[in-house]
Amino acid sequence: MLLARRLDEVYRIGGRLGANRVGGTPEEDEACDLVAGWMEEAGLAVERDGRGNVIGRLRGERPELPEVWTGSHLDSVPEGGKFDGPLGVLAGLDAVGAVGRSERTLGVVVFRDEETGCHGSRWRAEHGELPGSYVEVHIEQGPRLEHAGAPLGVVTGIMSYARRTVGFTGAAGHAGTKPMDARDDALCKAAEYVLRVRDAAAAIDGAVGTVGVLEVEPGAVNVIPGAVNLTVDARAPDAARLGRLLSELDLEPEPVVPAAPMAESVRRVLREEVERVGLPVIELPSGAGHDAGVLATAGVEAGMLFVRSLNEGVSHSPDEHSSDEDIGLAVDVLTATLKRLSSPGS
Amino acid sequence: MLLARRLDEVYRIGGRLGANRVGGTPEEDEACDLVAGWMEEAGLAVERDGRGNVIGRLRGERPELPEVWTGSHLDSVPEGGKFDGPLGVLAGLDAVGAVGRSERTLGVVVFRDEETGCHGSRWRAEHGELPGSYVEVHIEQGPRLEHAGAPLGVVTGIMSYARRTVGFTGAAGHAGTKPMDARDDALCKAAEYVLRVRDAAAAIDGAVGTVGVLEVEPGAVNVIPGAVNLTVDARAPDAARLGRLLSELDLEPEPVVPAAPMAESVRRVLREEVERVGLPVIELPSGAGHDAGVLATAGVEAGMLFVRSLNEGVSHSPDEHSSDEDIGLAVDVLTATLKRLSSPGS
Repeated sequence: MLLARRLDEVYRIGGRLGANRVGGTPEEDEACDLVAGWMEEAGLAVERDGRGNVIGRLRGERPELPEVWTGSHLDSVPEGGKFDGPLGVLAGLDAVGAVGRSERTLGVVVFRDEETGCHGSRWRAEHGELPGSYVEVHIEQGPRLEHAGAPLGVVTGIMSYARRTVGFTGAAGHAGTKPMDARDDALCKAAEYVLRVRDAAAAIDGAVGTVGVLEVEPGAVNVIPGAVNLTVDARAPDAARLGRLLSELDLEPEPVVPAAPMAESVRRVLREEVERVGLPVIELPSGAGHDAGVLATAGVEAGMLFVRSLNEGVSHSPDEHSSDEDIGLAVDVLTATLKRLSSPGS
Repeated sequence: MLLARRLDEVYRIGGRLGANRVGGTPEEDEACDLVAGWMEEAGLAVERDGRGNVIGRLRGERPELPEVWTGSHLDSVPEGGKFDGPLGVLAGLDAVGAVGRSERTLGVVVFRDEETGCHGSRWRAEHGELPGSYVEVHIEQGPRLEHAGAPLGVVTGIMSYARRTVGFTGAAGHAGTKPMDARDDALCKAAEYVLRVRDAAAAIDGAVGTVGVLEVEPGAVNVIPGAVNLTVDARAPDAARLGRLLSELDLEPEPVVPAAPMAESVRRVLREEVERVGLPVIELPSGAGHDAGVLATAGVEAGMLFVRSLNEGVSHSPDEHSSDEDIGLAVDVLTATLKRLSSPGS
């Protein structure tokens, strides 16, 4: 399959273990040039904007109408996987080719530098023209579809999230001479909090809470910890649930990155097309940020189609995997969806 | 008081914040030279052994009998306190001067490089002559005497201890996309273990357990921890209790540093002399290692007299403090004890 060969070709850039196309590096540029070449071969008109985002357009019969875009990103985390990003760009290229000339102009977009904070799509939302609607195919990067036995999922929205640093202070002391009942151990306080984060998130439907960083001071084998700093990453499908989670963890309610709901108009088409190809319709929120969330917040009618991640959703790793069959189904659903969005009257 | 002025003089060596006479540095040498000079002024004959330990002797009437030593160390941790070590050496110098010529030879010893593992006393126990008995005055470095309202304490023995590294493995994953019920978070496992160490130690009389080091992999705010390594420092007054603590924490029973009980013959004299000066008799184990423990293990009849540490037992810090009054009482008790040990027939 052409798409699979192209995924391999992008993946080989840099020639090291896993994907290594960090945003802003020559490897990301090389991937953009490679894909821009394929866009031109497919007859698309290629634009590069001031941030380096690449848009390949198939001009519509009524170019004055809002455009319909699909796409994703080509940058990766260090030693990342093969599918995170390029799948959405290359599935989009296949689908636009399959749809062909439509009422509205179709675009395949490569947003730059997504992994460190959707910088390309944010720049575009502030400085450039946006389409009327946008559909992004992306791997789930989680285990829900695998657990549900579903190849595809329709994203309800990008979760709201907050990041906090929490400090615990105790009294450093000699590990041998301070009796247990006279201790003020900062790590014991922090350990109780780590478990509280886990339990509070587990009790709120759809929420997740993670302590990813924990640092102990002074950090010596025979000294009672005097201070601990840790990070909390808290996410929930909507502001109410995120607020509840933050409140139960005694964290400031602001600032948070607000949830970015996907447009019901696009979700409905995606649901219908998933059903049409005979698959179960699973709707799920995205715990990770995506360019589709940035565009949704900027007013674009955005939707996302998740492709099942295998191996418990491992991602940001060379072990990341999705099957050719599932990818083929995603291209079919994307094609049908773009067809309906780009020729809404037909 | 001469002893207090001498403590200040030793403390000023190096001229930085706190005591800075780490074992093996020129500052430790300078402290030894200073104290050796005071020994000579006091009429003691000074020996330096092959490890740099300093022994100042007052020859007894029956020098063929086993000697009686007192002393401690002059090295410090970086930015340490004024009393940890020098107090025992200078109290010993005062006491030997007050006892004067006795039946047995009296010695004031400075053991080298105590803080990083009693290297000087260990060397001496393997390579040199040892006394028949040894009495060490040292600050408690803990809060028990302060809590009990007692200026002095008689040490029952040096606790047995063990150090272990424990690893926890989970599955690293995206903090946003992995639902709580599908996670295998190494830090949550480690947090439960930190609390287990606390609770298991608290349930065993006299035992202490400390997690002083905890390191998270990969340690990123948005990544579920995949691995955690932590250290356990476990101590108890005897092998049975340490064994119970290690077993409850699923730790290997060996290796451990065995407990070093103080000699009942010396403890009895210390108890009687503490009582004689009108103080409550408190007996307590030492959670920290000391040169007296090394000598006890080598067969010397050893005893230790703890001086109350103020401010909740803070030590290894410039905040370390014991009062002049308590120090004066310790010198009185040490003097009487050395008198009885050095002239047992009188």
